[in-house]
Amino acid sequence: MCRMTGNRAWRLDAHPRGEDFASALTLIDLPEPVPAPGQVTITADYLSLDAGTRMWMTPRTDSYQPPIPLGSIVPGQVLGRVIASQADGFAPGDLVRAFGQWADISCVDAATSGLVKLDESVADPLLHLGPLGMNGWTALVGIEEVGRTQPGDTVLVSAAAGATGMLAAQIARILGARAIGIAGGARKCVFLTEDLGLDAAIDHRTPDVAAAVAAAAPGGVNVYFENVGGALLDAVLPNMAHYGRIALCGLVANYAEVQPGPARFDQVLARRLQITGFFSPDFAHRGPELTARLRTWVDKGQLTMPFAVTDGLDNLLTAYAGLFEGTNIGKTVVRVR
Amino acid sequence: MCRMTGNRAWRLDAHPRGEDFASALTLIDLPEPVPAPGQVTITADYLSLDAGTRMWMTPRTDSYQPPIPLGSIVPGQVLGRVIASQADGFAPGDLVRAFGQWADISCVDAATSGLVKLDESVADPLLHLGPLGMNGWTALVGIEEVGRTQPGDTVLVSAAAGATGMLAAQIARILGARAIGIAGGARKCVFLTEDLGLDAAIDHRTPDVAAAVAAAAPGGVNVYFENVGGALLDAVLPNMAHYGRIALCGLVANYAEVQPGPARFDQVLARRLQITGFFSPDFAHRGPELTARLRTWVDKGQLTMPFAVTDGLDNLLTAYAGLFEGTNIGKTVVRVR
Repeated sequence: MCRMTGNRAWRLDAHPRGEDFASALTLIDLPEPVPAPGQVTITADYLSLDAGTRMWMTPRTDSYQPPIPLGSIVPGQVLGRVIASQADGFAPGDLVRAFGQWADISCVDAATSGLVKLDESVADPLLHLGPLGMNGWTALVGIEEVGRTQPGDTVLVSAAAGATGMLAAQIARILGARAIGIAGGARKCVFLTEDLGLDAAIDHRTPDVAAAVAAAAPGGVNVYFENVGGALLDAVLPNMAHYGRIALCGLVANYAEVQPGPARFDQVLARRLQITGFFSPDFAHRGPELTARLRTWVDKGQLTMPFAVTDGLDNLLTAYAGLFEGTNIGKTVVRVR
Repeated sequence: MCRMTGNRAWRLDAHPRGEDFASALTLIDLPEPVPAPGQVTITADYLSLDAGTRMWMTPRTDSYQPPIPLGSIVPGQVLGRVIASQADGFAPGDLVRAFGQWADISCVDAATSGLVKLDESVADPLLHLGPLGMNGWTALVGIEEVGRTQPGDTVLVSAAAGATGMLAAQIARILGARAIGIAGGARKCVFLTEDLGLDAAIDHRTPDVAAAVAAAAPGGVNVYFENVGGALLDAVLPNMAHYGRIALCGLVANYAEVQPGPARFDQVLARRLQITGFFSPDFAHRGPELTARLRTWVDKGQLTMPFAVTDGLDNLLTAYAGLFEGTNIGKTVVRVR
C-alpha cells in the first residue's frame, strides 16, 4: 500500500441515483502518497472521464468489473508525470498513463494498473487519452475485428460525437466503409458531417429514429458500433442488413438503471445478426500494436478528436455530468494542473 | 404452375391465434398435380412438422421468410417418391426430399425447392428428415461453427428433447464437450440423461431455472444452443461463461406473439458474449458435406433420434399441436401413406 502525505481526491460516499453525482461524491484531502515497492506515484495533468465509471458506482451483480466500494476513491485513467518510482523502468518526470484515481496524485501498481511510459514525440499529450489510448483501441478493434467492416459496408455508430464513437466512425471511413453517425442535437450532427466528414448524421432526438436510419441506410446497416442500447438499439435492429454485425462496447442507456432488453431481439434471428460484447481491458495488452496503427492515421490527419476540457479537479462533477447530458463533443477530460 | 388432378392438402384460411391451429386450417380436396417443365410431383411418405412454420402463418414484418398467404397450401418438408418428373436427374420412383406442401402430393420446382435424391442405403428413410436433414445440419453448424465448441466446453441446449436440440446436444458430446439439456418435464429429462447420455438435464418447469443452470454449470456455459428465447434466455444469460457463444436458431417463445426482449441483455456486454442468429436455408447448399459427416456418427450409433409419428394427413393438426404442447420427444412427423 502507498503511504500518503498530501493530495485531494474524489471519494464515493453513496450510490448515486440517476445522474445526481454531486450528492454521492466528496472531494477530500488526503496525505500525499509515497510509493511502496512495485509502485509509482503520478501527478495528474489530465483525468479521463468515462461513461463506464458510472456503472461501477452502483452495486450491480454481473457487471464486468466489481462495483467501487463506498468510502473509496473513484478509479479512473490518468495522464501525468511520475513523481516517485519504486518500479523498474519508471523514473521521476516520465510522461505516463495508468488507471489511477480521480485525484491530484495517483499511486499505482506498475504491474496491474496498465502503467505505460508514453511517446513524448506525440504533438499533443492529450492524444494519449483519446485516439492513441483506450478509446482508439476500442474503436479500431470494434470496427475492424468485432464488426469485420469491409470496404463498401454501411457502418452506423451511436454516440458518434463521443470519444470512442467518433473514432469508430472515422476508422470505418478509413477502411473504405460508408459511415453514419448518431448523436443528440443539430450541433453535433453538423459536426459529424462537416468537421468529421461522415456520410450522414442522425439526430437521436428526431421523432422516428428507425425511419431516419432506414432513410440513411437504404440497403441496411452492415455494422453497428453500439455504445448506447435501450430504445436506440430497437430502432436499429430492424434496419440491420442480413448477416449484419453489432459490436457492443457500451450500454450507456443502462448504466443508471437496468433497461428492458431489446424488444426487437427477434431480428437477431430473422436477419441472422451477430451481436458481440467486447471491451478494452481485454485487448489492453495489444496497446503498442494498436497505438502504432492509430498513430499513422493521426499523423496523416485522418483521425481527429476534439477534447472537452474542464479546468480544476474541483469542477470534475460538472464535467462528468456534461458527459451524460450530451453537451460535450469529443473526449471529456479534466485538466488537474 | 403445376396442373392438378387429385390430392388432399391443408390450406391456411386465417391467421391462427396462439396455438389454435384447428380453426385456421382446412383440409381440402385438390386435383392431382401434373408437373410443368422443371418440376416433379412427389407422393408424400412423411411430412416434417417444424416449429418455424407457425411463425409464417402469422403476418409479421421482418421475419426471415414472407408469411404464408391466406388461401394457400401450407409449405413444409416432404419425404416421398417421385410420381412424375419434368426435371433432369429425377425419375418416377426416386426417393426424394423437398420443400413441398402439407399435402398427399407435392408439386415442386427442382431448382428452388431443395429437391434432392436420397441415399437408399440409409437403414430408415425417416433419418433423412432428422439427423441426415435440416435438423442435423442446423445442429452441426450451430454447435461446431456458430458456437465454436471446444473439447471440455460446457454446452447447454434448450428444447433438448426436440429434433434439432437433441442432435445438438449429442454432437456437443461427440466433439468432446459436456452437454446439458433443457426440456419440459421429468419424462424428457430422464430421456436426456438415460437414453441420450447427456451429462445433465434441467426441467424448465422448475421454479428457478437460473439456479438450476448455475448448479449444473458451475463454471458457466461456454456455448448455449438456443431455440426458445423469452424467459429461458433470461435465465441463461447471467450463467454464461465470459466469452460465451449463443447460437440462436429459433425463438419458439416468440412465434405466436412477440415477447419482450431479454431483460438481461446487459450480460452480453458484461460477459463479452456473442449471440449469432443462423438458420438452415443459409447452409442448405452444404447439405451433402454436412450429411456425410452426420452419417458417420449415425452409422456408429453416436447420433440417434426417436420420431413421434402420427398416422394420417387428416391428423396433422393434432401432431402439430403436440409439437408446441411439448409432449413429443424427438422429431414430429406425419405418415401420409
